[in-house]
Amino acid sequence: MGKSLTRREEDYSKWYNELVVKADLAENSAVRGCMTIKPYGYAIWEKIQAELDSKFKDTGHENAYFPLFVPKSLFEAEEKNAEGFAKECAVVTHYRLQSDPDRPGKLRVDPEAKLDEELVVRPTSEAVIWNTFKGWIQSYRDLPLKINQWANVVRWEMRTRLFLRTTEFLWQEGHTAHATKTEAVEEAELINTLYANFVEKFMAIPVIQGIKSESEKFAGAEETYCIEALMQDGKALQAGTSHFLGENFAKAFNVKFTSDQGKQEYVWATSWGVSTRLMGALVMTHSDDNGLVLPPNLAPIQVVIVPIFKNEEQLELVSEKANLIANDLKSKGVRVKFDNRTTHKPGWKFAEYELKGIPLRIAIGPKDLEKGTVELARRDTLSKTFENQEGLTVVIENLLKDIQHDLFIKAEAFRDDHITKVDTFEEFKDVLNSKGGFLFAHWDGTSETEEKIKGLTKATIRCIPLEQTKETGKCVFSGKESKQRVLFAKAY
Amino acid sequence: MGKSLTRREEDYSKWYNELVVKADLAENSAVRGCMTIKPYGYAIWEKIQAELDSKFKDTGHENAYFPLFVPKSLFEAEEKNAEGFAKECAVVTHYRLQSDPDRPGKLRVDPEAKLDEELVVRPTSEAVIWNTFKGWIQSYRDLPLKINQWANVVRWEMRTRLFLRTTEFLWQEGHTAHATKTEAVEEAELINTLYANFVEKFMAIPVIQGIKSESEKFAGAEETYCIEALMQDGKALQAGTSHFLGENFAKAFNVKFTSDQGKQEYVWATSWGVSTRLMGALVMTHSDDNGLVLPPNLAPIQVVIVPIFKNEEQLELVSEKANLIANDLKSKGVRVKFDNRTTHKPGWKFAEYELKGIPLRIAIGPKDLEKGTVELARRDTLSKTFENQEGLTVVIENLLKDIQHDLFIKAEAFRDDHITKVDTFEEFKDVLNSKGGFLFAHWDGTSETEEKIKGLTKATIRCIPLEQTKETGKCVFSGKESKQRVLFAKAY
Ligand SMILES: [Zn+2]
Ligand SMILES: [Zn+2]
Repeated sequence: MGKSLTRREEDYSKWYNELVVKADLAENSAVRGCMTIKPYGYAIWEKIQAELDSKFKDTGHENAYFPLFVPKSLFEAEEKNAEGFAKECAVVTHYRLQSDPDRPGKLRVDPEAKLDEELVVRPTSEAVIWNTFKGWIQSYRDLPLKINQWANVVRWEMRTRLFLRTTEFLWQEGHTAHATKTEAVEEAELINTLYANFVEKFMAIPVIQGIKSESEKFAGAEETYCIEALMQDGKALQAGTSHFLGENFAKAFNVKFTSDQGKQEYVWATSWGVSTRLMGALVMTHSDDNGLVLPPNLAPIQVVIVPIFKNEEQLELVSEKANLIANDLKSKGVRVKFDNRTTHKPGWKFAEYELKGIPLRIAIGPKDLEKGTVELARRDTLSKTFENQEGLTVVIENLLKDIQHDLFIKAEAFRDDHITKVDTFEEFKDVLNSKGGFLFAHWDGTSETEEKIKGLTKATIRCIPLEQTKETGKCVFSGKESKQRVLFAKAY
Repeated sequence: MGKSLTRREEDYSKWYNELVVKADLAENSAVRGCMTIKPYGYAIWEKIQAELDSKFKDTGHENAYFPLFVPKSLFEAEEKNAEGFAKECAVVTHYRLQSDPDRPGKLRVDPEAKLDEELVVRPTSEAVIWNTFKGWIQSYRDLPLKINQWANVVRWEMRTRLFLRTTEFLWQEGHTAHATKTEAVEEAELINTLYANFVEKFMAIPVIQGIKSESEKFAGAEETYCIEALMQDGKALQAGTSHFLGENFAKAFNVKFTSDQGKQEYVWATSWGVSTRLMGALVMTHSDDNGLVLPPNLAPIQVVIVPIFKNEEQLELVSEKANLIANDLKSKGVRVKFDNRTTHKPGWKFAEYELKGIPLRIAIGPKDLEKGTVELARRDTLSKTFENQEGLTVVIENLLKDIQHDLFIKAEAFRDDHITKVDTFEEFKDVLNSKGGFLFAHWDGTSETEEKIKGLTKATIRCIPLEQTKETGKCVFSGKESKQRVLFAKAY
């Protein structure tokens, strides 16, 4: 196969980069920082999309689509938001190419076709959406307005990595409008919990729900809720955010409604999103030195059947049984592939499907036909058993559930094992450098301290966890009063 | 409601523009030529997407995602394609904004952040995809490669109309690579037929399959297959295209494969797409002076139940029955909404759902409870009947099928009635100006004649129909030899 992988303990970062490419998830493109999502990676993303989309709809949200471009004057209307994204904006300045007089057959930008007002390629859509909401909201009867959009966005990142940080990425962005502050805060919380449940139950990735510190929150938000996951190298990854935007965008775009009391009031807002970054979290949470490990919920192929044979006649006999098994599995909704290619040897196929993270592999050969068995291999544990062909579908259905569950438990144990309470800055640095993970430490609540800790250790406040027994103490760095512990970590 | 609509015969174009906005399908945005697709319109687009996507997958295609941006040097590689799109390209030239020293709190493009090479916002993705395919294709074993992408594209149009012609639009673009010319041509034909079946059976819009003349074909294609529909005003609308690209892109990007004979050969290509333009075709094929008419397959809500009541007590009794009806319909997979709002009168609701094109409306009041009936109204025919509550679900299931079928038959009769054989240029002009529709005429096969006819009448060759009894004759314009009749029309 020529696909041998760097081991994680050798170089985790290299392992990740290689795995994403070798497992056919994504690759770099000719466009600086932009990735191509390959069919196998995209099939996983489609599963993420479908599940999230149905959850959004179940909670009363509707999809819509807003323009890719934001005129600069709209973009700058909410100043903090604009300031936060200004440094990474791709800008369209011209609308035509023409023949290049100096290079026959080649093109150049037509200098005559300069836009009067430049267009920003959306890094996020609050501006263009709130400018639109202005026309949609007049009365309290128009509220709440709960909209989601599946879209591509562009943020000009200087250092990019497949899925984790790319110039263009795919995401969903929810944008809601409410009559009251309470309702908007509840929406932001509801979505953060929806994200947490989705990531934990569907992707088998444990997360901690929390809120961001002032310096880490979204540009233009009053409060940013988040879910934070922990990767196998001890670095944290922000897997989703949900923002309570207050009246900031309503004021920037003058969006008011007539209340049921007949008064003109500003509208309260939220926005929230998850992106193709989740694909990076998926890879880095479960996979191993042999390749991807996929939770059954997300696996485009859940079971692969590999025939063992020495000649055409054997393949025919084995295929007959394999097709029966495959059809029975399909009838129960299991996603199964029978790989009967004669161009590749079983050993090659085993390695290939291991690399691709197929949760279960069935091998079946002439001896199995005699005995009425198959060999069943689990990708997550790499364990093999012999199973009777009779009743195999039920065994597999149960195993798929087990694997989904076990992957979560394993990741959760690792995560729980990597949350360390630290009470001195020495301890903070020691644990960060030796073990990594989350450091659960007191903090004085100032951006100044946060900045200093970041400067000294590269660790940032990932979140102030929502669920914790409140405990006062002394800041791990400044020694000043602290109202509660927060989670620090180095992060992706 | 304040939503009265211009009548079609008064001003068809105005009727269309008003209807798209008033029925909440889409609206213009702050970005020149870009539309916002509103939730109701987007819900219809999602139905189109889901059905097409499953048809693509059933025929062995996989989804992937390629970058939004195309570096100019890649864009210009296939010269004809580049030339065809150069005049309508949005171009990114800078990657950063900064504070504007002259306007406090405002932003300007950072002159220091100019790109070395400009990026074209994709008007279509052949270039970026074939540059990628180069890395994916080495051997005949890698072929065929059958990829689809759901994406936004940008073409800088000077005159735009919602759905029909917008600067940004949503579409799917298929891109396939094959070992032989025959296989590529078969793929292009297969997809054109897939499009025809989808548009006819799912959208109830009759189409004619054909090929484009030299001057109307896709820039960079050897042959463009298309499906052409006819709108109620007698103008044609191209609803989808499928291109046989020959070896043009393989040569431009040097994509070769080792054949099973061990020879290096260029790869054969196709590309094909349908877009949000289909939404315009949908509106203009079926709708009437009262608003939208939606085929049941595409209707986000297929049945709406409106309660008739004078007081709270009546509403409660009616609601009880309405909920039973709704639940029974839901259990059969019918998309039903019970509108029990007390803020709007039944008459308002009737008009609203008529405007929105809901195929069936049930009205139920106290008298119906006594009699065990409901009033059932069909949107397409505007006819009403009384139906027994008993067995209602079956009646409705059958009616939904009837409506789907009848809409097609009606549109097909109109279309068939608007295909006129003409044999002189006088006749050509007379029919075009009086009746419109397709003119089935002999043509000498030259771009020169085509151009002249277009200049004189605005009619273009919509397609050379695939299915026709070959008949030689004299060109309707030049009198020269003609090998077959072709379809002319004014077109969207
Ligand atoms: Zn635990
Ligand atoms: Zn017919």
